[in-house]
Amino acid sequence: MKLNIAVLAGDGIGPEVTAEATNILRAVADLGGHDFTFTPALLGGVAITAAGTPLPEETLKISLASDAVLLGAVGDNKFNHLTPDKRPEAGLLQIRQHLGGFANLRPSVAYAALSENSPLRPEVTKDADILFVRELLGGLYFGAPRWWNHDTNEAINTMRYTRDEVVRVAKVAFELAGKRKKKVTSVDKANVLEVSQLWRATVTEVAKDYPEITLEHQLVDSMAMHIMNTPRSFDVVLTENLFGDILSDEAGVITGSLGMLPSATIGGKVNLYEPVHGSAPDIAGTGKANPLGAILTAAMVLRHSGKLEAEAAAVEAAVQHVLLAGHRTADIARGTDPAHVRVTTTQMGRLVHEAL
Amino acid sequence: MKLNIAVLAGDGIGPEVTAEATNILRAVADLGGHDFTFTPALLGGVAITAAGTPLPEETLKISLASDAVLLGAVGDNKFNHLTPDKRPEAGLLQIRQHLGGFANLRPSVAYAALSENSPLRPEVTKDADILFVRELLGGLYFGAPRWWNHDTNEAINTMRYTRDEVVRVAKVAFELAGKRKKKVTSVDKANVLEVSQLWRATVTEVAKDYPEITLEHQLVDSMAMHIMNTPRSFDVVLTENLFGDILSDEAGVITGSLGMLPSATIGGKVNLYEPVHGSAPDIAGTGKANPLGAILTAAMVLRHSGKLEAEAAAVEAAVQHVLLAGHRTADIARGTDPAHVRVTTTQMGRLVHEAL
Ligand SMILES: CC(C)[C@H](C(=O)O)[C@@H](O)C(=O)O
Ligand SMILES: CC(C)[C@H](C(=O)O)[C@@H](O)C(=O)O
Repeated sequence: MKLNIAVLAGDGIGPEVTAEATNILRAVADLGGHDFTFTPALLGGVAITAAGTPLPEETLKISLASDAVLLGAVGDNKFNHLTPDKRPEAGLLQIRQHLGGFANLRPSVAYAALSENSPLRPEVTKDADILFVRELLGGLYFGAPRWWNHDTNEAINTMRYTRDEVVRVAKVAFELAGKRKKKVTSVDKANVLEVSQLWRATVTEVAKDYPEITLEHQLVDSMAMHIMNTPRSFDVVLTENLFGDILSDEAGVITGSLGMLPSATIGGKVNLYEPVHGSAPDIAGTGKANPLGAILTAAMVLRHSGKLEAEAAAVEAAVQHVLLAGHRTADIARGTDPAHVRVTTTQMGRLVHEAL
Repeated sequence: MKLNIAVLAGDGIGPEVTAEATNILRAVADLGGHDFTFTPALLGGVAITAAGTPLPEETLKISLASDAVLLGAVGDNKFNHLTPDKRPEAGLLQIRQHLGGFANLRPSVAYAALSENSPLRPEVTKDADILFVRELLGGLYFGAPRWWNHDTNEAINTMRYTRDEVVRVAKVAFELAGKRKKKVTSVDKANVLEVSQLWRATVTEVAKDYPEITLEHQLVDSMAMHIMNTPRSFDVVLTENLFGDILSDEAGVITGSLGMLPSATIGGKVNLYEPVHGSAPDIAGTGKANPLGAILTAAMVLRHSGKLEAEAAAVEAAVQHVLLAGHRTADIARGTDPAHVRVTTTQMGRLVHEAL
């Protein structure tokens, strides 16, 4: 099979972890006789530095012409003085918009091998397997008007949703729940926000087409607590954009490290794949970055864009294998098992490759 | 000393836990020869039922004429079909506005006696002591325009802050940090939201007047993770309204139960005191509610409105004592210590009274 993958490695640890992810994809292609091509392009801070804008035309062209976009990470403190529309993150938000994917899938799984690594008790995280479906193109991230008026010293952002935007992402959540534990937890703040009332009413309506799925509603504040107390009780968690941003990072705690979490954004012209972690400028270039989030993201490329389920599962199994064998990057080295071996970013990538 | 306290017990478990809190305040008054009067008034669902509105005029009058307002909890699923401006919660938001307190103080402390009760490992929570300073009168909760248009199937809410609103709450955070571990962590989403950029710039400016305080900025998504991973590394956490709502509930996990968390809202005409937990209609009337959140809230009444620091500390010590003796309401009964005794709401209240 042929896959033309745009690689937007981005800032900080982005290039390091993306290199390991593409290595794995190359290995899968070699093993299975697939034809994967990789076209690099600039996004984020590196694009501002090289081309004066966080999302250059060229990057957009390459991305829209690809079968899948694989992203590293975006963000650089160097640009903190710029307004949000000029910062590295603006490139990320713009490419999300252009590619059109509205359903951001973020699995948060408790790996047995990492149970010592979570601040949560092993008996709490055991067997937890949550799939966040985060709406990615609406809400406060994109709503207008939005401004900071330096004369009046006032700023506003707008949280906005239409029924159609909620319907399409809710459908994705219910479809996915149908292949899992048949439960959708929809998150909102309907006791305060009108937008959340529209959200709740719409999700309730969509649920009628999925009688086999159990729907529950949770307020975002309670949910932030429940996810930690009873992670096992959740299956698919459906959220608007900002709530999903917050809760999916929080759920990194279940896995034991944000560095382990992959994501795929589907539903648009071209699927977008990005690990959940950020650019982590403080550890860039030190070999401390965990490439497993990016490698598991590569597995999602295989699954969702390549329809190569067996290959995706093989990559995931290889990751499990390496973890069970005791290999650990810095972020997942909590715990005192003497059998554990500290490895660098590239070593970890090579180990997964060998395990494949 | 004289304190005229308006008691707005509200919905669900509100009346049960508030009764225990006022008992403790009565006991403190008796012991110290203070003159505390309690004037009950309706708020929330009970007010809608009795008076057709979640915040009756009478309640507002009583509250504004008091030295302190003690609230139970507000919220009733019976009114879920109403728009946000007519629901029980609207009464809460309106009274917050009328009383004018903008700084909502929410301590989240790891009690040694409850270390088994948190889903977090004891070595993670040990000695954690976070004080949230949540801005309570701005942001998405109150920003206009706000509507759900049923014809166009579209809804919006507005997140809005002015510099002055940020300055006044930031000052409270820095002042409080000066009496604690001298660190303020300000939470925002400055890589995406203009409002957060105003927030961050303003907090940074206010910090200049407090050279002895260390200021750090955290993005709300990372913060949701850090609080669980390293709760001990935080002292005062300063947030806008919605982020504080989410993060302070999440931080309930550190204490072991939302049922333990008190809050005080200061800076306005009359201070408002409310436990962080909700009305929990599912357990109302069963004797399962934990009154300690309300009782610790009463301690905050003594501290902030009565300036009775010794009495406040005595109530807090009495709570610790009862917990160390092994008494547990349902929400804090995790763990298997055979020495633990399950108690009801009123029994727990009586035990704290005796310990005083
Ligand atoms: C970098 C930032 C704009 C982004 C977001 O908030 O969506 C990130 O936190 C994420 O979760 O992918
Ligand atoms: C009941 C609700 C309106 C309220 C809020 O969101 O402020 C509550 O969650 C709280 O945290 O006090």
